[in-house]
Amino acid sequence: MKTYWAVLAGSLLAWMLMGQDAGAALDREKLLKDPGVYGTFAVFKVDEDWWKLEKAARTSAVSEVKAVFQKHADHVITDTYLLRGLSERADFFVRVHATEMLNNQNFLVDVMGTSLGKHLHNTHTFNGLTKPLNYVPGFPEDVKTALKTPPDPGAKPYVIVVPVRKDAEWWAMSQDARGAMMKEHTDATVAYLKTVKRKLYHASGLDDLDFITYFETAKLDDFNNLIIGLERVKENKHNKQFGSPTLLGTIRPLDEIMEILSR
Amino acid sequence: MKTYWAVLAGSLLAWMLMGQDAGAALDREKLLKDPGVYGTFAVFKVDEDWWKLEKAARTSAVSEVKAVFQKHADHVITDTYLLRGLSERADFFVRVHATEMLNNQNFLVDVMGTSLGKHLHNTHTFNGLTKPLNYVPGFPEDVKTALKTPPDPGAKPYVIVVPVRKDAEWWAMSQDARGAMMKEHTDATVAYLKTVKRKLYHASGLDDLDFITYFETAKLDDFNNLIIGLERVKENKHNKQFGSPTLLGTIRPLDEIMEILSR
Amino acid sequence: MKTYWAVLAGSLLAWMLMGQDAGAALDREKLLKDPGVYGTFAVFKVDEDWWKLEKAARTSAVSEVKAVFQKHADHVITDTYLLRGLSERADFFVRVHATEMLNNQNFLVDVMGTSLGKHLHNTHTFNGLTKPLNYVPGFPEDVKTALKTPPDPGAKPYVIVVPVRKDAEWWAMSQDARGAMMKEHTDATVAYLKTVKRKLYHASGLDDLDFITYFETAKLDDFNNLIIGLERVKENKHNKQFGSPTLLGTIRPLDEIMEILSR
Amino acid sequence: MKTYWAVLAGSLLAWMLMGQDAGAALDREKLLKDPGVYGTFAVFKVDEDWWKLEKAARTSAVSEVKAVFQKHADHVITDTYLLRGLSERADFFVRVHATEMLNNQNFLVDVMGTSLGKHLHNTHTFNGLTKPLNYVPGFPEDVKTALKTPPDPGAKPYVIVVPVRKDAEWWAMSQDARGAMMKEHTDATVAYLKTVKRKLYHASGLDDLDFITYFETAKLDDFNNLIIGLERVKENKHNKQFGSPTLLGTIRPLDEIMEILSR
Amino acid sequence: MKTYWAVLAGSLLAWMLMGQDAGAALDREKLLKDPGVYGTFAVFKVDEDWWKLEKAARTSAVSEVKAVFQKHADHVITDTYLLRGLSERADFFVRVHATEMLNNQNFLVDVMGTSLGKHLHNTHTFNGLTKPLNYVPGFPEDVKTALKTPPDPGAKPYVIVVPVRKDAEWWAMSQDARGAMMKEHTDATVAYLKTVKRKLYHASGLDDLDFITYFETAKLDDFNNLIIGLERVKENKHNKQFGSPTLLGTIRPLDEIMEILSR
Repeated sequence: MKTYWAVLAGSLLAWMLMGQDAGAALDREKLLKDPGVYGTFAVFKVDEDWWKLEKAARTSAVSEVKAVFQKHADHVITDTYLLRGLSERADFFVRVHATEMLNNQNFLVDVMGTSLGKHLHNTHTFNGLTKPLNYVPGFPEDVKTALKTPPDPGAKPYVIVVPVRKDAEWWAMSQDARGAMMKEHTDATVAYLKTVKRKLYHASGLDDLDFITYFETAKLDDFNNLIIGLERVKENKHNKQFGSPTLLGTIRPLDEIMEILSR
Repeated sequence: MKTYWAVLAGSLLAWMLMGQDAGAALDREKLLKDPGVYGTFAVFKVDEDWWKLEKAARTSAVSEVKAVFQKHADHVITDTYLLRGLSERADFFVRVHATEMLNNQNFLVDVMGTSLGKHLHNTHTFNGLTKPLNYVPGFPEDVKTALKTPPDPGAKPYVIVVPVRKDAEWWAMSQDARGAMMKEHTDATVAYLKTVKRKLYHASGLDDLDFITYFETAKLDDFNNLIIGLERVKENKHNKQFGSPTLLGTIRPLDEIMEILSR
Repeated sequence: MKTYWAVLAGSLLAWMLMGQDAGAALDREKLLKDPGVYGTFAVFKVDEDWWKLEKAARTSAVSEVKAVFQKHADHVITDTYLLRGLSERADFFVRVHATEMLNNQNFLVDVMGTSLGKHLHNTHTFNGLTKPLNYVPGFPEDVKTALKTPPDPGAKPYVIVVPVRKDAEWWAMSQDARGAMMKEHTDATVAYLKTVKRKLYHASGLDDLDFITYFETAKLDDFNNLIIGLERVKENKHNKQFGSPTLLGTIRPLDEIMEILSR
Repeated sequence: MKTYWAVLAGSLLAWMLMGQDAGAALDREKLLKDPGVYGTFAVFKVDEDWWKLEKAARTSAVSEVKAVFQKHADHVITDTYLLRGLSERADFFVRVHATEMLNNQNFLVDVMGTSLGKHLHNTHTFNGLTKPLNYVPGFPEDVKTALKTPPDPGAKPYVIVVPVRKDAEWWAMSQDARGAMMKEHTDATVAYLKTVKRKLYHASGLDDLDFITYFETAKLDDFNNLIIGLERVKENKHNKQFGSPTLLGTIRPLDEIMEILSR
Repeated sequence: MKTYWAVLAGSLLAWMLMGQDAGAALDREKLLKDPGVYGTFAVFKVDEDWWKLEKAARTSAVSEVKAVFQKHADHVITDTYLLRGLSERADFFVRVHATEMLNNQNFLVDVMGTSLGKHLHNTHTFNGLTKPLNYVPGFPEDVKTALKTPPDPGAKPYVIVVPVRKDAEWWAMSQDARGAMMKEHTDATVAYLKTVKRKLYHASGLDDLDFITYFETAKLDDFNNLIIGLERVKENKHNKQFGSPTLLGTIRPLDEIMEILSR
């Protein structure tokens, strides 16, 4: 049996090295745009014992976390968000991107292995990957043009993550029928392209989801209207799950989140 | 990566300052009436360790909470409610209103950062915003007049919060069809306008809800009849979620709730 | 803001005093029969730390609970039930009746504020109120007569509580259609009127329920047959929730339950 | 109020004494065959603190449990089963039989009152009673004969417990229609009568279930085929709940289970 | 009663010895291919107290676990997988195979009895058995041939486990109708036979599942496309449960998982 493990460990190691661009800094913009990128949303709640630690212990634990982010900067890109106050489910979440899911796991295993990590309750994890646009190529030219509207400049401090699962009927439809529904869905979003930024992850088989939808905005009233618009189109009837959980939070640098947790 | 955070932190800061009317006292009545106001319902249960603290530690922790309410009084208005005894889900909840959701978050992060806050288990949080009346403008004049009935004077010590989610069919109907159903719904409420005060928040996209409905009354038997009346109208068939949780409690000043928790 | 609280606290106080018949002993039989009475079922499980206390501490904590029952005897009537052994959900529950729900809350807040209360996990709370009979007035005379059958004398040591929620279709039916179904439902109960005592609470809007049904019996096999009979009538198709939880226990004096918990 | 309790306690006591065959040893075989016997399945998971006790404390706690089993041997018969390793839900369960449900409760209250009991988390409890065969009397003679097939001799070390709840349609059918479906159901079981032993409990009203089905076998592959056979008959469409939880374990003497927990 | 236990214990012992090939090393490849083999997937999360232990205590606890794996190597074969970082549900899982389910239980009881095991929270356990192919014998020759495609050589570091439960309609269909749907299902998998390895376990009656589907791959994007393909075929409409939980992790030797937990 020992031989078996040794061989497996060896090939795992080889594969890990191969899959990683060790030493090379990651191109953040490219990873946020490219298809074929793996995204993991790791959602955490600090446990009750954390707050009983001495302030010095908390401050030192926070440094460990920052060091882990630094250490993995060549293999993953990360974004951090504060949920505390706006969600009963968690305190914060990290969005991790890499060209291999294994890099996301290795990073998160290290985060969870810090002194702070040992006090983190991992309440949700969503896994997905980015892919080329599915239906847009078949849309009329005016919709395609509208979709190129750049979002308004300026900070979009709010984040909303909505996991989605489609029903069996949705998947049983022809590509054309689905395309027609997605066209109607897309029409409902056009009015909000300037104020709501959006990113899509495919999750079938990687999680109990079909999609992870990610939004950034400065105008939550616009976002509320956008979602009402999406609730009104026929495609909405095929959402077996939409949210549950809906994660509403604010984009905050790691330092700020860590500062809140070490007060 | 450091640059990225610095820029983001900077713009966040600017935006926070801009969005806040620092120094100016909030107009409570106006915020409770205006559309475009963000409401957060944060529901808490005290953990078991809280009760093991010395009475002095509990009293001092309570002062911290009061100071946080004071500190944020320029940015949020707050109301407090006791659930303990009438709900297994929690001990109390705070309703927070502000013109920016970020103010609600910052206030609640500070509450949760107090010595008491560290013993609070945040069992539910509902987020919504107020909007102009949707269907009323199309109602006949007599209904519009009835809706202007002022509630009876006198304290309405009971509070009931009922989160609501509509089904896909509801949203797929025409505005007219929905308006007709809401007219029937409204007719069922007319008899209770004097004894039951009501406020509505829109939550689609900000939470796993479409609406947060909020009620105050002194007559729970009237409220029970009102809800039975609402269960009988056709619109009720489109409530995918109605309650779950229904929060029943009493309006109590912060001081009284804190006194109960520091006994 | 201070003024607001002061006014509210004042009017709350006035209202509390007004609503209470301070000093007058409650008429137990009357409260158990009258409509317009508020009932709260508070279900508790003792936490793990309770059992680690010294026996002396447990005995003293138990005395505190008894004193709270005594103190509120002018404002609420109470019954106690042992679930331990027959339900994984809890150890015991208290049924509280008063003419104002606030009295139930104040009593339970005091129970939960005792040294034992701080070790009680409140697993369920059901709130309802009693009302005049709804469908019986329209029933034929022979059914009305049958319903007057007095239960057999003698102890009925078992208690069963079944919370019920009806579906939207039920409420959308005409009063006559519902009456006809309730007639069939009632016919199925006639054979068990002697061995199964029953009491009904209306809960719509006060809880995530429409009814709380309460039963006492000495013959659980009769009760099993009664429920099978009720499962067979058409009205059963409109029970969206029936039980979940069904609470099965035994009627036991407070002293006996406290003795079990202080062993 | 004191008088009320005293009377109730008195009549409870009288009733308890009357209902019990004190001093007489229970006839195990008879109780396992007779109708009108109450069965309680109490499922337990040891808590984390248990394992932190000194071995001596664990051993002494185990003796207490054995003494409780001994003490109640005149009022209940018991069987014990190990789930640990095969179910995430619990470590073991006890099946308790008595002619009065109260005896089951008193026994389990005593088990839970031991030093080990205070470390037991009661994850599930199912209550039911045995009744005469319902549909078999109407079956053709060859089926009746087949049903008399005695199970193969030899140990049947595996146990499976499957709680079942029927849908409203099932109960609304005529006795004949249900009988016809049960005939088809029974036909599917004939091939497994030798290798799978079965016992049925009726639970409507005593639990959130209609039936508790209990199986013993030495051949889990046969059992898997039996269940697939039962999934294929029309009656299966009326199972609103089948399992959830399915409890798979092994029959083990109390001593062996206690030995595993005191290691 | 003592006699009863003694007899049972004796026959259990005999049966255990008989069922086991004591002393003989297990043939790993054969057990992974044969029908009639019992598989248990035991999923664990380390509790919070584990991380508070001294490093020496953690290291020693880890050795105990390795010794248990060694001790049972003649009765079970095992594979280990890291979920930590990619799933909120658990840290790792063990897949255990044996010719008797009892061997799986005895192994897992021993694992859970180690010093580490006492800190493991067993979040899920799935039980199933392997059987001969059901529908393939009836497939056309070209599909049969395609199914013989050997997977690409090289490590397949990712694991995905998807538990499945079919609806009542599925089981009520004729074998032919199910075969036709499974043919369509199989066609959708052909393109991925090289990059996705698959193994099937039957679970009806042994768990609240009908199947446990197990996959290994190096290409998660292929796996995502495979699942989308399977979502599109008619058989998908009969999946009452598909995932929930979907377990995504990486194949890792026990030593590596233990090293992560003892850091």
